[in-house]
Amino acid sequence: MNPSYNSSLLDNAVEQLSKLPGIGGKTALRLALYLLREEENVAVGIGESLIEMRRKIRYCKKCHNISENEVCELCSNPRRDPATVCVVESVKDVLTIEATRQFSGLYHVLGGVISPLDGISPSDLEIDSLVERVKNEDIKEVILALNPTIEGDTTNFYIFRRLAETGVKVSILARGISIGNELEFTDELTLGRSIINRVPFGN
Amino acid sequence: MNPSYNSSLLDNAVEQLSKLPGIGGKTALRLALYLLREEENVAVGIGESLIEMRRKIRYCKKCHNISENEVCELCSNPRRDPATVCVVESVKDVLTIEATRQFSGLYHVLGGVISPLDGISPSDLEIDSLVERVKNEDIKEVILALNPTIEGDTTNFYIFRRLAETGVKVSILARGISIGNELEFTDELTLGRSIINRVPFGN
Repeated sequence: MNPSYNSSLLDNAVEQLSKLPGIGGKTALRLALYLLREEENVAVGIGESLIEMRRKIRYCKKCHNISENEVCELCSNPRRDPATVCVVESVKDVLTIEATRQFSGLYHVLGGVISPLDGISPSDLEIDSLVERVKNEDIKEVILALNPTIEGDTTNFYIFRRLAETGVKVSILARGISIGNELEFTDELTLGRSIINRVPFGN
Repeated sequence: MNPSYNSSLLDNAVEQLSKLPGIGGKTALRLALYLLREEENVAVGIGESLIEMRRKIRYCKKCHNISENEVCELCSNPRRDPATVCVVESVKDVLTIEATRQFSGLYHVLGGVISPLDGISPSDLEIDSLVERVKNEDIKEVILALNPTIEGDTTNFYIFRRLAETGVKVSILARGISIGNELEFTDELTLGRSIINRVPFGN
């Protein structure tokens, strides 16, 4: 209720923590009091790691993923296949795909999807730079891995058209029923698509 | 799954944020990526406020509440009544009672309650210092405001005995049905006590 905790230092820490998404005043107070009880190096460690991360992380000039150098670790890794580029919406999607350990190519982070309602047009995204990469690098295949939403599909189609002149192979993530899910709980649209796009058994 | 996000700066921030209670790896990653998207001053503001709070906050030498100086703002406020001292378990309880705006005396923060199972004996708590305060200051009443648990009641009784020789008036928070609750949902122990401790109507 009362925003003042009789200490401007605590007030300030609570106010700052409340800026994080999903963390309200009560949680912020709980976290701040926890840090006061713990050793000093816990609070200092968290604080310094956030400041250092925000100040030092840059974006890779090739793929626009987060990076500590001009070109990120993925783009500069000689063991990754530079002929395959996976197009994703955000930095988080890179981490998600990396966690599958099924992709050994490079990425291209768009920074969002085309969304007229949110005022995001193709020029706000890293689409021109993707076309440039395809033209200038030895890229054989572009895999579209945007979220399966209306905006994602619009962006897929826009990128597909932009890349048509380059003759590069463009593919898209398979859509269908989730492994381990029951048919009963699969949405009709996905189930319908998975019937249309059925594949031969046993390959 | 994969703890490495291809950036040691991000890895470190996620690891540090995960040390906070109730924040796991996924939430920590979400918070870190949020901070990367926001302006630099958001992450820096949070980081600096945590470090500054932890380094600068002291504990009041009188009441053991958090403080920025040797004696806290409450103890040094001439408008608070120094003759009434409210004994609480933790710093958070001070905030909770202050939020009611029904108490204008001073506090004494024990730092816990007697709990043999957790290895907490009276000497681990600020009980000696409470007895000293009652002996040396002009305190008329000590209000016991510990949590209504077995440990809280044990501690209440221990403090009551320790203070007996000083002749100070010792009172305890009223226990009974919660305002706005339905009788049906009140636990039997509380309801039973509230019948025994009923008060005259209309005062």
